[in-house]
Amino acid sequence: MNKIITIGREFGSGGREFGRRLSELLGIAYYDQEILSEISKRTSLSEQYVQAIVEHRPSFSFPIHIGQSFYPLGNPAFEQTMTVYQEQERIITEMAAKSDCVIVGRCADHILRAFKPFRIFVYADMHSKMKRCCEKGPEDEQLSDKELRQKIAGIDKKRAKYYEFYTGHPWGDKLNFDLCLNTTRTVIKEIVPAVAKIFA
Amino acid sequence: MNKIITIGREFGSGGREFGRRLSELLGIAYYDQEILSEISKRTSLSEQYVQAIVEHRPSFSFPIHIGQSFYPLGNPAFEQTMTVYQEQERIITEMAAKSDCVIVGRCADHILRAFKPFRIFVYADMHSKMKRCCEKGPEDEQLSDKELRQKIAGIDKKRAKYYEFYTGHPWGDKLNFDLCLNTTRTVIKEIVPAVAKIFA
Repeated sequence: MNKIITIGREFGSGGREFGRRLSELLGIAYYDQEILSEISKRTSLSEQYVQAIVEHRPSFSFPIHIGQSFYPLGNPAFEQTMTVYQEQERIITEMAAKSDCVIVGRCADHILRAFKPFRIFVYADMHSKMKRCCEKGPEDEQLSDKELRQKIAGIDKKRAKYYEFYTGHPWGDKLNFDLCLNTTRTVIKEIVPAVAKIFA
Repeated sequence: MNKIITIGREFGSGGREFGRRLSELLGIAYYDQEILSEISKRTSLSEQYVQAIVEHRPSFSFPIHIGQSFYPLGNPAFEQTMTVYQEQERIITEMAAKSDCVIVGRCADHILRAFKPFRIFVYADMHSKMKRCCEKGPEDEQLSDKELRQKIAGIDKKRAKYYEFYTGHPWGDKLNFDLCLNTTRTVIKEIVPAVAKIFA
């Protein structure tokens, strides 16, 4: 089996840790922040700006997949967003063509569909995501439970909108994945060897 | 990790084959038809009748989980249904208490929640389920595509209603499972050793 593995994940579910550990165990490349750096290099936009763009869908009412002819040309913000997205698409495709890899987020499951990647979605219940956030980020410890819940839900809402805008598919729908992994009761370190065995 | 494994599955997704192979590889019990036979023995109802009951929720508008005091006592069909369900619950609990096992369907994930079972859901896209049905059952080959699609959707609709009636939870919701496995692009025989490794 080829080892092009894409990982979608809910915020706080440990999807990034899972992806990193899986790539290490399989001895293949892991792409996450590297993609932003490369986009930034190629577009001469700052990494922060690129990050902001790839975390929001453009505020236009029609989706990208209906075709280029509808783009409101002449709108610089929209054009920059499209440039970033197209560059991201190009970079992810180049990376997958170059070697086996794990790619976290960034609609990679959709972008790489011609490669027939193994598509994983990592999720967890809210309580477990809140706990993980507090363990990982001291800034989340300052938030009340309500605020933290809102933060997590808000980030996932943005991811869902972004994914749906660019792919035309609902975010997190299990039919779009080969394997969905609930980390609520699972120790990530312990489940990784099992998942790695799929590619053995 | 204990090896109480429950498997929910869409009709035609290969969940039963997956469960059987997993139990064989782990060397633990596999319960499916055995549960019906045992209910039949204990209630003196025929296996066919028991099967018919456990495939349909009773046609009453309130769910079982709101408590026994609402049962319409004196309605023999309803009482028989409840007897079968309670017997099923008792048998499944006895089986799990006795030894490690794989149990397919029958709301076992909910019935055994105190055991903290590992809960797997097996699913696939409609095209793949239709293909599998035709390969497994010669009677399905006689159906038109439309008829087969309706049959599959109909069986899953019944399963969903049954599950929701008895558990109070939506059927197939990934949050109620530890692992969801899409068999559309997967050879079941090949994925089983990876899943078995979770329990190694």
